[in-house]
Amino acid sequence: MKNFIFTLFLATIIFGCKSKNQEENQKNKKINEFAIIIHGGAGTILKKNMTPEKEKAYQEKLEEAVRKGYEILKNGGSSVDAVEQTIQVMEESPLFNAGKGAVFTHDGANELDASIMTGHDLNAGAVAGVKNVKSPIALARKIMTNSDHVLLSGKGASEFAKKEGLTLVDSSYFYTEKRFKSLQRAKEKMKLELDHDDKSAFYDSDIKDYKYGTVGCVALDKKGNITAGTSTGGMTNKRWNRIGDSPIIGSGTYANNETCGVSSTGWGEYFIRAQVAHDISALIAYKDLTLTEAAKEVIQKKLTKLGGTGGIIALDKYGNMVFEFNTAGMYRASMDDQGKLNVKIYKE
Amino acid sequence: MKNFIFTLFLATIIFGCKSKNQEENQKNKKINEFAIIIHGGAGTILKKNMTPEKEKAYQEKLEEAVRKGYEILKNGGSSVDAVEQTIQVMEESPLFNAGKGAVFTHDGANELDASIMTGHDLNAGAVAGVKNVKSPIALARKIMTNSDHVLLSGKGASEFAKKEGLTLVDSSYFYTEKRFKSLQRAKEKMKLELDHDDKSAFYDSDIKDYKYGTVGCVALDKKGNITAGTSTGGMTNKRWNRIGDSPIIGSGTYANNETCGVSSTGWGEYFIRAQVAHDISALIAYKDLTLTEAAKEVIQKKLTKLGGTGGIIALDKYGNMVFEFNTAGMYRASMDDQGKLNVKIYKE
Repeated sequence: MKNFIFTLFLATIIFGCKSKNQEENQKNKKINEFAIIIHGGAGTILKKNMTPEKEKAYQEKLEEAVRKGYEILKNGGSSVDAVEQTIQVMEESPLFNAGKGAVFTHDGANELDASIMTGHDLNAGAVAGVKNVKSPIALARKIMTNSDHVLLSGKGASEFAKKEGLTLVDSSYFYTEKRFKSLQRAKEKMKLELDHDDKSAFYDSDIKDYKYGTVGCVALDKKGNITAGTSTGGMTNKRWNRIGDSPIIGSGTYANNETCGVSSTGWGEYFIRAQVAHDISALIAYKDLTLTEAAKEVIQKKLTKLGGTGGIIALDKYGNMVFEFNTAGMYRASMDDQGKLNVKIYKE
Repeated sequence: MKNFIFTLFLATIIFGCKSKNQEENQKNKKINEFAIIIHGGAGTILKKNMTPEKEKAYQEKLEEAVRKGYEILKNGGSSVDAVEQTIQVMEESPLFNAGKGAVFTHDGANELDASIMTGHDLNAGAVAGVKNVKSPIALARKIMTNSDHVLLSGKGASEFAKKEGLTLVDSSYFYTEKRFKSLQRAKEKMKLELDHDDKSAFYDSDIKDYKYGTVGCVALDKKGNITAGTSTGGMTNKRWNRIGDSPIIGSGTYANNETCGVSSTGWGEYFIRAQVAHDISALIAYKDLTLTEAAKEVIQKKLTKLGGTGGIIALDKYGNMVFEFNTAGMYRASMDDQGKLNVKIYKE
């Protein structure tokens, strides 16, 4: 009997150790030497509301953007170059709520936010509420590399952009009829609500149903450096110089070579409260979760429990990539080191 | 022989389980039914530079502030009331770089930041770069409770404050001769530097040596709710509408009833990059560290390795309290549920 128990003990220990090692081997295996993943916003994106032309336009632009970064990485370029230039493709397209396609604030202006973080040195740069800079992601990078600050805002950020020689544009650059009409509709809806306070306006299902359209990119380069970046025009009809999660390091963007890189999109307030981007990294670092497990835990459990909607893209140091969202859709794409392209819009 | 090995196995397992349980018992013990901890900034605060009068003034104001919150908690009040009113005592004093004593920006203005977070619902409010609101912490609380936003900034935040009936003040309210002279000295020093770029100005040892003077408070009330808050005037001679860590949830302030509450003070950029406040919480939640271990790990190892200076106050769900800083001093105080007062300035 004792011998039987003893054998059982040994078997348990040996089996336990073996399965642990197998898991670790799987986790420690480099899947991709380099990789890139992007999003163009999450929200109630339903096939029934989409025309084939519109669907194609999104798919093509997502592919163009992800290929831009892929080529940089393939040629030995840095993840920070890949992230900046990939995001710029989306900033320059009116399809996404970032740069050119930014939504309008309550006052009819465009206030742009962006952030970038490099995982090898945990350096970061971010900008909030800038109105006349063509590429907010380029400004975020300049703040990271050419200032000792992380986050600059408003007019001060514009002055810094000018000093750094970045392209400034007139506010008309950001005007798109589609976004302006969105603002008018949001305001009309607000007037119609019985309860006139801001709460009801903000919870307006019409606004809530708008895809948020933030864009983001995470890349791993051949040197093993991870960079994450996010750029947005914020929320339609926003007021009081509201700042969302996109320029907030740890919420909208986070990168750490030891764990992963994350870019968020969705209802920013909840992403700040849930500390989405850093929490995914912390679960990998401290609880030994895989990237997939960590992303699921944060988006499907913690964020959802809090009432938040949206999603993330993330990429770990092994080159694993994950899309995770609790909305009907997320504009997204990825490419691995074999050049395998993955472009999607709706939930599977 | 087999019996011996078997006994050894059993002993190891039993002993292992017992010591683990003992640790857990120690950790799960409620130390204080309610508690409060505050800081008034960290930096190169040396006894040799301090007059007895100045030392006394700081000690008395710290005691006044912490007693304010203690009385609220003792009488069954909420931690959010305790944090707001305690911070207001420090905001109204010219001794600290918050509210009344805010430092000047490069342009000779005062730009105030604050944030607050409640641990039972992970709700949060924050304000950045507001110029005419007497109590930034009161505004942060209003943003948390009366808007659906987390972070408002600049003029928009002022409009929201006005709408909420908060006290607005003329910029002259924030004028203190001491802070204005600090700006002049910082600018003079900048001119004298051979290297005129912003980097050298920012790394100027004279500015670096200034205590930063952010104020903060974390409280646990009788219901077990933790609230953390932070308020600051930012960094002397700051430019470009720079936003530091104080209004950034997860960096300057974080609270979670399941783990702890944290308020930071120091070189904000490093606190953002190191995700100081949320990282302490994550180490408790996911790595099962004690509050003391988590605070040491983040401040003495991770932040210090990154090159950051400053400190934190933190308080966990058991009522354990910790001051942790890597500077020469930190203005700080705490009170436990027995009314035991602890006021300190220098490193022990």
